[in-house]
Amino acid sequence: MTGTEDLHARVALTWLAEPGTRSVHRLVDRLGPVATLQLLLDGGAPDETLRAAVAARLPAGDPRAVAAEAVALTDRLGARIVSPADDEWPVALGDLARLVLPGASRKVDRETAPPLCLWVRGGWPLAEVLDRSVAVVGARAATGYGVHVATELGYGLADREWTVVSGGAFGIDAAAHRGALNAGGVTVAVLACGVDRPYPMGNSALFDRIAETGLLISEWLPGAEPLRPRFLIRNRVIAAGTRGSVLVEAAARSGAAQTMHRAVALRRPAMVVPGPVTSALSVGAHELLREYRDARLVTGLAHVLEEVGRIGSDLAPPARGEERPTDVLDDDAALLRESMPRRGVISADALAARAGVPVRTALRKLALLEELGLVTRRDDGYALTRPQPSHGHA
Amino acid sequence: MTGTEDLHARVALTWLAEPGTRSVHRLVDRLGPVATLQLLLDGGAPDETLRAAVAARLPAGDPRAVAAEAVALTDRLGARIVSPADDEWPVALGDLARLVLPGASRKVDRETAPPLCLWVRGGWPLAEVLDRSVAVVGARAATGYGVHVATELGYGLADREWTVVSGGAFGIDAAAHRGALNAGGVTVAVLACGVDRPYPMGNSALFDRIAETGLLISEWLPGAEPLRPRFLIRNRVIAAGTRGSVLVEAAARSGAAQTMHRAVALRRPAMVVPGPVTSALSVGAHELLREYRDARLVTGLAHVLEEVGRIGSDLAPPARGEERPTDVLDDDAALLRESMPRRGVISADALAARAGVPVRTALRKLALLEELGLVTRRDDGYALTRPQPSHGHA
Repeated sequence: MTGTEDLHARVALTWLAEPGTRSVHRLVDRLGPVATLQLLLDGGAPDETLRAAVAARLPAGDPRAVAAEAVALTDRLGARIVSPADDEWPVALGDLARLVLPGASRKVDRETAPPLCLWVRGGWPLAEVLDRSVAVVGARAATGYGVHVATELGYGLADREWTVVSGGAFGIDAAAHRGALNAGGVTVAVLACGVDRPYPMGNSALFDRIAETGLLISEWLPGAEPLRPRFLIRNRVIAAGTRGSVLVEAAARSGAAQTMHRAVALRRPAMVVPGPVTSALSVGAHELLREYRDARLVTGLAHVLEEVGRIGSDLAPPARGEERPTDVLDDDAALLRESMPRRGVISADALAARAGVPVRTALRKLALLEELGLVTRRDDGYALTRPQPSHGHA
Repeated sequence: MTGTEDLHARVALTWLAEPGTRSVHRLVDRLGPVATLQLLLDGGAPDETLRAAVAARLPAGDPRAVAAEAVALTDRLGARIVSPADDEWPVALGDLARLVLPGASRKVDRETAPPLCLWVRGGWPLAEVLDRSVAVVGARAATGYGVHVATELGYGLADREWTVVSGGAFGIDAAAHRGALNAGGVTVAVLACGVDRPYPMGNSALFDRIAETGLLISEWLPGAEPLRPRFLIRNRVIAAGTRGSVLVEAAARSGAAQTMHRAVALRRPAMVVPGPVTSALSVGAHELLREYRDARLVTGLAHVLEEVGRIGSDLAPPARGEERPTDVLDDDAALLRESMPRRGVISADALAARAGVPVRTALRKLALLEELGLVTRRDDGYALTRPQPSHGHA
């Protein structure tokens, strides 16, 4: 019963104050959703802004009745509500509780708390699907170039069994979803409105396919309208729910670029595909690469996998056939290998200094050398791999 | 007389050992060119490699006679030889004496000493022309996109009275030179062969125009052939002789990318124009941006000027007409201004921390704020600009 009551309170709170509101999230953390709801209904919101927001919403209905209706409607839609109490809750969203955006002056940049609950349409367990996921986002008014790149990326990621997450918009978002669907993979559209009325209508057929084979998710109640600010509020969920985000095309000051700011602040890989400087749809992408030292230029699937992949499963496959492992090493990798001490262990930093290679590069190349069986990782650093000693020489 | 003797010895040494040879440069530094020449002719080269190189060259002629002939030929060509003793010697090339390329394993990456002298065709004083210069380099097999970008950059730089330096090759190099010529500006082609026979022949008309209004320069004797390794040896002069280098298009592992490695190692701005990831001619550019944290993505003239420009002359022009200066501030600049203390001075680092903006960004934006007259630079940091005190209130 408490579970149901909790869930209803979360829904009511989501309706009372826009998702992401920090003060609500803090109260829920401290008091639980039921007591928080009661406190707000009693006019006890801890700050004037929240008190005003609640007061403004109350004339529209009784929050508890609205919540009960939303829960019933969710059932009728064949959808479900997932809350932090559920096994399928994506714990990565908890990182939003600590998200601080430098110099945040706008509301959407300050109110970035985790969702209180999520609506889900589709058969997959949410946490499992997002555990191995990459966001691909970009401009609605994408060019043929951007659509091509996003489709390829969506396809490639899905083909390697990564979930492709995007916002369901026209242009890059739709291309990424479609690429994943074409590969027979799983794709998730994170909506800025109710899961019963995915926006834009023009993508209805796409949303139907996503709901069948992937997931439609939202932090808004069924029936909620796709109001403009909601797209920006929603973007933090795309950034936090995935292992990393890729921006394909964006005009200056775009919403997609804003997703990337969140990814950077969350210390998720923020990857950007460059484009022709002659295109207005590349301006936002290049701005990001210029302004954020942590934004990473990627040109395709291999680079994306390198950023988000786990060592051993998503690195470039080792060489086959007649090739020796060392044949595939590029200059840096070869240099690092040559710089390894013949015996004993060396730290990545020390090795990088010795080889005169940036530490970041050294770490990547060491992972490659390890994958190729040329180097062994020890507790205190790296060592050249030795042939197995024969028995009796232990 | 010593001046002439010195110069002849430098020419002879240039002929005896390929330009850039470190051991020769060190000897000249210590003993002067005349004594160095004598030492080498006596078989006294300090290392086996140099001894072998000298021995290999000697059967082709008497170095002193070759030098006398080259000097005479240079005169007949209407060209001149510039050495470190001359006023027009570009002192920036001296930085090559300290250039160390990390992990250099190839000869061309180790033998990067300054030229002993330079051949010059054209009317401008070399040092003056290079003092305010930017290199624009890239692929020979450039695409229409690259040619467009390089031409625009060459034009824009020349139009802002920057010298455009490149290598005279087909593709990007030629486009950059042409852009500068079209703007009526000065452009310099750094050749990998004698200034009497600029390579490639297909660019003859271009070289003629450059010689008339700009400069053709080379560290090789007249008549010297454009051997393949010479292009790579030459690249260090392009990187060291300019304020910064811009790469426009490059395939993987290109010679132009190698120029950029030198620019990075010399701590000159190494700027890279991105392109479509679907183009093979963008691979080298994107590789550089991925591998070098110090390589800077630029999308056009404004970004290049921001990197190489001197504060006060090459920043974006301040707002005109009805606009208030603060109208033109972007988010970061506005935020930094708001974060300035009302009175007193703050360091760029402290201000960056206060505003939550990267220090690099803060420095750029502070330069802008200074240009706009909103902020004043002091010995110990930055302060808000105050209205001039009226007389009598000193």
